[in-house]
Amino acid sequence: MGHRIGDASAPARLAAPDEGIGPDELALATRNHGLPLEALRHDLTPPGLHYVLTHYDIPYVPDDTTWQLTVGGHVRRPLRLDLADLRAYPQVTTRVTLECAGNGRALLTPRPVSQPWLVEAVGTAEWTGVPLRLLLAEAGVEPGAVDVVFTGADHGVERGVEQDYQRSLSVDAATGHEPEVLVAYAMNGAPLPPQHGRPLRLVVPGWYGMAHVKWLRDIAVVDAPFTGFQQAVAYRLRKRPEDPGEPVTRIAPRALLVPPGFPDFMSRTRVVRPGPVRLEGRAWSGRAPVTRAEVSTDGGRTWQEAALEPDGGHRWAWRRWRLTWTATPGEHVLSARATDAEGHTQPLQQPWNRGGFAVNLVQRVPVLCLEEDAPE
Amino acid sequence: MGHRIGDASAPARLAAPDEGIGPDELALATRNHGLPLEALRHDLTPPGLHYVLTHYDIPYVPDDTTWQLTVGGHVRRPLRLDLADLRAYPQVTTRVTLECAGNGRALLTPRPVSQPWLVEAVGTAEWTGVPLRLLLAEAGVEPGAVDVVFTGADHGVERGVEQDYQRSLSVDAATGHEPEVLVAYAMNGAPLPPQHGRPLRLVVPGWYGMAHVKWLRDIAVVDAPFTGFQQAVAYRLRKRPEDPGEPVTRIAPRALLVPPGFPDFMSRTRVVRPGPVRLEGRAWSGRAPVTRAEVSTDGGRTWQEAALEPDGGHRWAWRRWRLTWTATPGEHVLSARATDAEGHTQPLQQPWNRGGFAVNLVQRVPVLCLEEDAPE
Repeated sequence: MGHRIGDASAPARLAAPDEGIGPDELALATRNHGLPLEALRHDLTPPGLHYVLTHYDIPYVPDDTTWQLTVGGHVRRPLRLDLADLRAYPQVTTRVTLECAGNGRALLTPRPVSQPWLVEAVGTAEWTGVPLRLLLAEAGVEPGAVDVVFTGADHGVERGVEQDYQRSLSVDAATGHEPEVLVAYAMNGAPLPPQHGRPLRLVVPGWYGMAHVKWLRDIAVVDAPFTGFQQAVAYRLRKRPEDPGEPVTRIAPRALLVPPGFPDFMSRTRVVRPGPVRLEGRAWSGRAPVTRAEVSTDGGRTWQEAALEPDGGHRWAWRRWRLTWTATPGEHVLSARATDAEGHTQPLQQPWNRGGFAVNLVQRVPVLCLEEDAPE
Repeated sequence: MGHRIGDASAPARLAAPDEGIGPDELALATRNHGLPLEALRHDLTPPGLHYVLTHYDIPYVPDDTTWQLTVGGHVRRPLRLDLADLRAYPQVTTRVTLECAGNGRALLTPRPVSQPWLVEAVGTAEWTGVPLRLLLAEAGVEPGAVDVVFTGADHGVERGVEQDYQRSLSVDAATGHEPEVLVAYAMNGAPLPPQHGRPLRLVVPGWYGMAHVKWLRDIAVVDAPFTGFQQAVAYRLRKRPEDPGEPVTRIAPRALLVPPGFPDFMSRTRVVRPGPVRLEGRAWSGRAPVTRAEVSTDGGRTWQEAALEPDGGHRWAWRRWRLTWTATPGEHVLSARATDAEGHTQPLQQPWNRGGFAVNLVQRVPVLCLEEDAPE
C-alpha cells in the first residue's frame, strides 16, 4: 500500500475512436517540438528548429568542465574522460538526419497515446565528436562482450519503472565504420544545446532518435544481451501487448514537402495562385541511400519523378528534391514519396503497431489554388 | 463562386464540452513550442528553449545583408535602412521576459480553438537593437500622427483575411522611454534565429508577444487609428463575438515553478522523496515590478511567502524565487502566485474570454511523494 513509484504512471493505452488529443499528450506536445516544415529549405536545420523529444527533464548542467564520461564493464582498461580528454582524440564530423521513432504516430488509427507527432519530428545537423570505436579500442573490449550500454543523465519514470535513460547497441554496431557511431560534443560547430544532450551525446547515423543517447555519462560493455526498459519494453514493433516484438532500429524512408504558397493560421491549409509552383522537399532513409523521390498532386493516384539532388558526400543526411507543378484553381492534395537503394518505400496505408513506431505513411498536404481573379 | 481565399479558413469557434484537442490545434502544437519548465532555472533561456509562436510560415531569409527596413507614412524624411545602417545607431540591450498572449488558453472551459498553450509559452532573452524613438525622431513624425504600424514579412490567411502580419502602437507607446521599444537585431548576443524574426524584430518590453513584430520590414506612421486584423479583430478581450472588446496589451503577473523531483514520461506527474525539497521558480509582470511570490503546497488553500531575488536592474525580466518545502508521503498539488507593485495578482478561477488571451490562472503541479521505504 501507500505511495509507490508506480502510482505516477498510467498503463500504455490506445485512444478510443474519435478521441481527441488528451491533456497528457498535449503536455508532451507543448514541451517537445517538431521541425516547422518550411525549415526543410535549410540543408542544416538552424538551432531551435531541429525536432526535440525529451523523455524526462533536460538535465541542468551549469558547468561542462566537470562532466565525466566513464567507459567500463567488460573491458581491460576502464576509462574516465572529461571534455578536454575527448577533444584530444581524432575528431569526426558527420551530417546526420535524425528522426524520432514515433514520428507519424498521431496519424495512426487507433492512436497509441504518447507524444503525438504528425510528420515533423526530424532535423539535420552536423555532429562532431570522437568515433566510439576508438574509445572502445582504448578500453579494450574483452572476449565474450555482447552489447554496449549507454546511460544518460536524464532520470524519470516510465510505465512504473524508475530509470536513467539507457539504450544499447551490439558490439558490432558500436564499433562499425559505416555507420560510424560518434560520442558528439558539438552540433553545427557549437557546443551541444541543452536539449540536444549538452555536453555529450551518442550519434548513431541512420538510426531513429532513441539510439542517440543524450547527456551521455556512462558506456558499459556487457556480456549478456541488454534488457533495459528502453530496449526490451519500449521501442519495439508489436501488434499486441504480449508480443515480444521486433526492435526499432534504422530509419524507414520518408519524403516531406516544403509546404507551398502560404498557410491559413488555424487550418494550416496552403494557398497558392494558378500557374507554375516550384515544389521542393527532402528525402531520406537510414536503411540505404535514397535513390528516388516522387511527387503526387492528386492525393497519391499518380506519381511524377522529382529531380533528386546529389548527396554531396553526406550519406546519412536528407537529399533535396524539386519539381515544378502547374497549379489550377481548386483543392489539391500534394504528396511526396522516397525510395531507397534496397527498394524500401513509403506506404499509402500505414501498417499499424502498438507503439506507433517507424511510421512512414506518405504525407498529405492540402492545397487550395485560388481562381485567377481572386482578390488579394 | 469558386475557390476564394476564405475557403482556407474556418470560423473562430469554442471547443465542445470534453472535446479533445483536434488535428488543427495539434498541427500548431507540434510546430510551435513552449519553454520546457525545467529551463526556468536559466536566467537567460538558452536558444531553442524560448517559446515560439509563428502565425504563418517562418520567412526564409538566406542573406541578411539585403534586408531593408523602411520607415515612412506621416513623417518628414522617410528612411530606408539595412542592417549596417541600423548597427550605426546607438545600441541598447534589454533583458525581456516575453509571453504569448494565448498562454494558458487550453486550460479554459470552454476552450477557444487556437494554439493550445497550457502554461509554458514564455522565455527570457537579452535583445539588442536601436531604440525605435531614435528612428522615429530621425524620420520626423508629423503633427497629427496617431499610431505607428509595424509590418512583418510573414504572410498568410486568418479568418479569411489574407495579410502580412501587422500590429501598431500609439505614437506615445512607440516613442516612450519606459518601456523603451527596440528594433532588435540580436538575441543573447547573436543574430536573431529565424524563428525569432531574423534579421529584425520589434521588442516591446512588458507587452505580450503579439506586439513584438518579427521579420520587421516596414514602420509606417499613420494619422488615424490602425484597424488591421491583428489589432481590431484578433487580440481583443471579449466575451461574445459581437463585442468590440478591449485590446490585449501588457503581460499580467504570473509565477511558474521549476517542477521538482523527476517526471513520469506520460503523465508528467512529478515524483519526490520525503524530506526537504528546494522549490524555485520565476515570477514576472509587464504591468508593474513583481513585489511578491507565494507558494502553496495544498492546492491553493494556504500560501507561504517565497524569497524573491532582486531584479538585478532587469525591470522587464522575470525574478527568481525560492522556498524549501518539507515533502511528506502522499499526493500534493504545488502552486506559485505572483503579485506586482500595482497589486495585480493571479486568480485561482480564471475569468474567461473568447480568444483565450491574458490568462494567468495559478499553475497546478501534481507531485507524488513516495513512502520512506519506497524501492528505487
